[in-house]
Amino acid sequence: MVPTVGSAGSVESGESARVTASARADLLAAEEPLGIRVDGSALTMTMRTPGDDVELAAGFLVGEAIVRGRDDIAAMKVCDGTTCGHLDHTKDEIGNIVDVSLAPGVEVTPAARRAFMTTSACGVCGKTSIDDICVLPRTPLSADTTAFDPVVIASLPDRLREAQRVFSSTGGLHAAGLFTAAGELLVAREDVGRHNAVDKIVGWAVLQDKLPLTGCALLVSGRASFELAQKAVLAGIPLLAAVSAPSSLAADLADEAGLSLVGFLRGQSMNVYTGAHRITLPA
Amino acid sequence: MVPTVGSAGSVESGESARVTASARADLLAAEEPLGIRVDGSALTMTMRTPGDDVELAAGFLVGEAIVRGRDDIAAMKVCDGTTCGHLDHTKDEIGNIVDVSLAPGVEVTPAARRAFMTTSACGVCGKTSIDDICVLPRTPLSADTTAFDPVVIASLPDRLREAQRVFSSTGGLHAAGLFTAAGELLVAREDVGRHNAVDKIVGWAVLQDKLPLTGCALLVSGRASFELAQKAVLAGIPLLAAVSAPSSLAADLADEAGLSLVGFLRGQSMNVYTGAHRITLPA
Repeated sequence: MVPTVGSAGSVESGESARVTASARADLLAAEEPLGIRVDGSALTMTMRTPGDDVELAAGFLVGEAIVRGRDDIAAMKVCDGTTCGHLDHTKDEIGNIVDVSLAPGVEVTPAARRAFMTTSACGVCGKTSIDDICVLPRTPLSADTTAFDPVVIASLPDRLREAQRVFSSTGGLHAAGLFTAAGELLVAREDVGRHNAVDKIVGWAVLQDKLPLTGCALLVSGRASFELAQKAVLAGIPLLAAVSAPSSLAADLADEAGLSLVGFLRGQSMNVYTGAHRITLPA
Repeated sequence: MVPTVGSAGSVESGESARVTASARADLLAAEEPLGIRVDGSALTMTMRTPGDDVELAAGFLVGEAIVRGRDDIAAMKVCDGTTCGHLDHTKDEIGNIVDVSLAPGVEVTPAARRAFMTTSACGVCGKTSIDDICVLPRTPLSADTTAFDPVVIASLPDRLREAQRVFSSTGGLHAAGLFTAAGELLVAREDVGRHNAVDKIVGWAVLQDKLPLTGCALLVSGRASFELAQKAVLAGIPLLAAVSAPSSLAADLADEAGLSLVGFLRGQSMNVYTGAHRITLPA
């Protein structure tokens, strides 16, 4: 039971306000830590909404340039407290760890290790990060010549919201959706972390062996950060659309990597920041 | 120059839509990586809006339970490419690294090291995390008996928005504000990352030697995640208010740590999830 305090009355006028309180139940978006282990070593921890955890781990590894497709993963399992080989798990930890075994020859790259371990990196630099990321995709995004109809793009937020209504009513979740250029929703995911929602989508594609996601559009419910642009580029998605604003570094990366970046996608209007050549009228 | 595509016409009706495009300049929220080094070793990297970087680093270290007050920091400086002792900095890196020297006897705790290095941790568990965090503050939050008037709480979002108008017009920033129980704004910060906005506020308080922030309220423009609740608890802030929803783990932590957690603070209404005893009518 959650007490709700509703205060009525004008504060600005200086009059005393009438305040009433009542108690009621409220649904909260679930948030729990998930540990991702790779080849026996803990790699990272993320706070996520439980569910689709294997997909989350797979997608996360794509976004860090460790995994480029299903073949790069030998096995994935949710640790049940015994399969990890660690006997000191508490009850609460069980189910909150995904154990990934990479295929032979695939390993955590020095760049990824640096990002996680940060033991040797002296500094960081946006330009360097962008250069590093742009060379990573097997096929450069610029090779993806898919045309996107702006009328279809404008319809995506409503389609995502429709899928969201099925999922939750907590008001505390970020959403992301993957669409075809024709506007068909392939998969939608929600999470307390917007990066997790995107990781779950990319991981879904990994497990379906759909990478790179040529010809697809990724829509996110919030802002387009550098991190989300990076995840789109590494998954081979040519168009990233956000309901809210992009950051400067997201636009810089998108420009350099050949990603079409759409922001402020609201109603029938949008801003196209980079890759405008893909956004064309239907013939 | 950013091309803007505005599409007009009904998509649902199936009629062909009239699409117009125009080019205009747009302001983007700046996002750049900041490296935080502690006693000569890189500790973490965060994507942030440049500015108040020393405060960001100081606040970050409070949120990780490494620093509890100004005396725990011997020196902080923005690395200019020579003072770090590394000679291979590129021009872009300069100014994007904060170098922190901790006071004698203060060190990166095993818990913090585990979170960053993740070399030994097998798994993670919300309950364990909460227990760990609750024992960290020197003075438990439950000792803070400040009373907050719900009418004052309801006025905080407008006061923060007023401060925001001065700062930016990019639409891409999260905001956070620190207030007295009387509703006076002590400091406001904006950032592409909501955790950074809070770190900058806590860091401001560290440099002013104001920790713990007894009697204060922290307002965030978005959702209340576990991470933000953790930062509030470790800074000694007794009340965290969010314009949007809290997560389940944020509420769990708030309950355990004695933090008053307010969500959906909109207009004259709010939900009080934990610590409702602090929210009272003025005598």
